[in-house]
Amino acid sequence: MTSPAPSPSPGRTLPETARTRHRRLREQGSLDRGALDAVLAAGFLCHLGVVVDGTPMVVPTVYGADGDTLYFHGSVASRSLIASPGAGVCVTVTHVDGLVLARSVFEHGVNYRSAMVHGTPRPVTDPEEKLAGLRCLTEQAAPGQWDYARRPSRKELAATSLLALSLDEASVKIRTGPPDDGDGPDAALGLWAGVLPLHTTWGALEPDPALPADLAPPAHLTARAASPA
Amino acid sequence: MTSPAPSPSPGRTLPETARTRHRRLREQGSLDRGALDAVLAAGFLCHLGVVVDGTPMVVPTVYGADGDTLYFHGSVASRSLIASPGAGVCVTVTHVDGLVLARSVFEHGVNYRSAMVHGTPRPVTDPEEKLAGLRCLTEQAAPGQWDYARRPSRKELAATSLLALSLDEASVKIRTGPPDDGDGPDAALGLWAGVLPLHTTWGALEPDPALPADLAPPAHLTARAASPA
Repeated sequence: MTSPAPSPSPGRTLPETARTRHRRLREQGSLDRGALDAVLAAGFLCHLGVVVDGTPMVVPTVYGADGDTLYFHGSVASRSLIASPGAGVCVTVTHVDGLVLARSVFEHGVNYRSAMVHGTPRPVTDPEEKLAGLRCLTEQAAPGQWDYARRPSRKELAATSLLALSLDEASVKIRTGPPDDGDGPDAALGLWAGVLPLHTTWGALEPDPALPADLAPPAHLTARAASPA
Repeated sequence: MTSPAPSPSPGRTLPETARTRHRRLREQGSLDRGALDAVLAAGFLCHLGVVVDGTPMVVPTVYGADGDTLYFHGSVASRSLIASPGAGVCVTVTHVDGLVLARSVFEHGVNYRSAMVHGTPRPVTDPEEKLAGLRCLTEQAAPGQWDYARRPSRKELAATSLLALSLDEASVKIRTGPPDDGDGPDAALGLWAGVLPLHTTWGALEPDPALPADLAPPAHLTARAASPA
């Protein structure tokens, strides 16, 4: 999850709202639309927050980002959305880049990139948009598979509930670099300080045991195996 | 995040509640307390869900799990908890283990381990419990650092807001193994299917540029660098 794509929207700024205003650690916050696109492009798993009976529920699920829209499966949010259609959600995508190891415990932290999108998702009912949304979602996690695997049948498409969330209300937080106590009094303690990076990589392909032995994986998968995610 | 520790609670079963009952993909759900402990022990970052002005907010933050308690910083939840003390939260921890590449797009999915904890967090005010909670939180992300780095001063301790959440209401979902369409009609399509695993590893230590050149990192950090996370 460390290969941010070039942003399609350089220079655009997201609107500041009560929910996207950065109140803590202001220096890490950003309303830059390009930064948002890069964080979303670098992953495929989000944490979806919904309110069920007045309490929050946070569910991991896959997403696809396409222009100004974020797509995700409606089924994961069903309890909430059936109970109160039109209810707001929060979608958060986080990449952990490393541990910040400071001289003091107090200054320890995490280098990360995180995007938070707020809004009321819209059910996708138009079959063409649904197909395009599912393609986006599939290709975000597994590029090349939409053209390689069998596409959804009409029945499968009908059984799939897809939601679209606008990227209009969103914010990004990013922390990079060494600990912050390198020029403070703790620097005299003689303790090592720095960053322990965390890397995510794809492993070697594991064929389904049900496959015939001579069935080779397609090039788009062999190219991805053992590469940085 | 792939080294689950031995469970301290083998065989214990978590109570089923309206929030922890598994409604979707039931076969992946578990109320086994040992499974919960293993998922929590394998990571250090959670997504914390709170309700702010009736809408959900999902924030990434570090946690520490100690016996029946999960500790996290109160500052991340401050907007919600100041607005409505005693409000419920949902803490979700997810490890992505790989992509499930099926013959059909419809059967594509993710191998993952996820824990979801529900409850109303309790502010930790007792200084001794606060210190123990912060130690737990620090050691979960960066084992060895509590003894190595400078511990929190009385002033830093007072400035830190710590919350404790009981693990009593929690559930686990796990998906492992190959795609599910190996014995269906799509198996005849002649398409490759299997799993593309995702691995998380620690990189090489990056010294703070402010460090003296001859200051060597401690053994607990050099041992961890370049090992599986």
